[in-house]
Amino acid sequence: MRSPHLLDIKSEKSLRNLFKDVGHFDAVVNTIGVCEYAYFTEMTEEQWITTNSSKMMGQINIVCIGQEYIADTGSFTLITGILNIKPIPFAIADATTSGAIDTFVQCVAHEMPRGIRVNSINPTVLEEAWDVYGEMMPGFQPVPGSLVGKAFERSIDGFITGQVIYVDA
Amino acid sequence: MRSPHLLDIKSEKSLRNLFKDVGHFDAVVNTIGVCEYAYFTEMTEEQWITTNSSKMMGQINIVCIGQEYIADTGSFTLITGILNIKPIPFAIADATTSGAIDTFVQCVAHEMPRGIRVNSINPTVLEEAWDVYGEMMPGFQPVPGSLVGKAFERSIDGFITGQVIYVDA
Repeated sequence: MRSPHLLDIKSEKSLRNLFKDVGHFDAVVNTIGVCEYAYFTEMTEEQWITTNSSKMMGQINIVCIGQEYIADTGSFTLITGILNIKPIPFAIADATTSGAIDTFVQCVAHEMPRGIRVNSINPTVLEEAWDVYGEMMPGFQPVPGSLVGKAFERSIDGFITGQVIYVDA
Repeated sequence: MRSPHLLDIKSEKSLRNLFKDVGHFDAVVNTIGVCEYAYFTEMTEEQWITTNSSKMMGQINIVCIGQEYIADTGSFTLITGILNIKPIPFAIADATTSGAIDTFVQCVAHEMPRGIRVNSINPTVLEEAWDVYGEMMPGFQPVPGSLVGKAFERSIDGFITGQVIYVDA
């Protein structure tokens, strides 16, 4: 079993080091992306930049740099989240960057070389995270993480590309 | 008639100066946003940052700072573009930031204070710009700029908010 790698998706160098260290790989799954939460009228430019550089540009970097290293017909699966479809207070930066990444995968899939695929998973809140997020998400029905796992599996082991896979209840 | 103001939408200071200089205003229309065009696999991080800071964060800044100054029930109308719906080569950064802004207006409208409205206009290529862009947009039907003007008018003088107004043929 390989040892874990520490990675900063905001750093081209860190991404290149990871992909070189790993060697041959057929799929990349990303489930991270830092978001700042605030009322829009109180959100600072710094908070926007933090969110954009991680959840948006970090994920674009994964595909942009990763496509140089991944095996033919390999796949990238990125993470967004349902708040671009079902907006709530405090989540404007999360929603905006989710919209950016959902758009990105739908458009960039057409120009990926060597049969490489790109999809995003757009889940609602997880049952396992309901204790943390439930209070700010009234009327949302959480789904089990295992169901979101199925969506990743469908992206990785299927042949679809350029798709946003919603996991909502 | 007022004299023209020079503005850098990437600069909070420049935006504040404009809004203070203008005094009372009921509507802001933005039709600018710098985009870099390249194949995704050849696009540099610098080109992404240029596009994100202008077309995406520049427009978010207009609303974020402008909402402090605009009159009650005033409106903001931002610009995106059809390439997030009809992708073409070279336009991944344009498409991604259009997706971000179309999402932004749909979500942020819910939390605007004092009845302030926010919409985006998402046009196809203009007849007036066909000489420049036509070659890279095979199969697109250009529309006259006057029709896009109608969409801005509908955003400004109507009561809609949180809407993406498509102008396509």
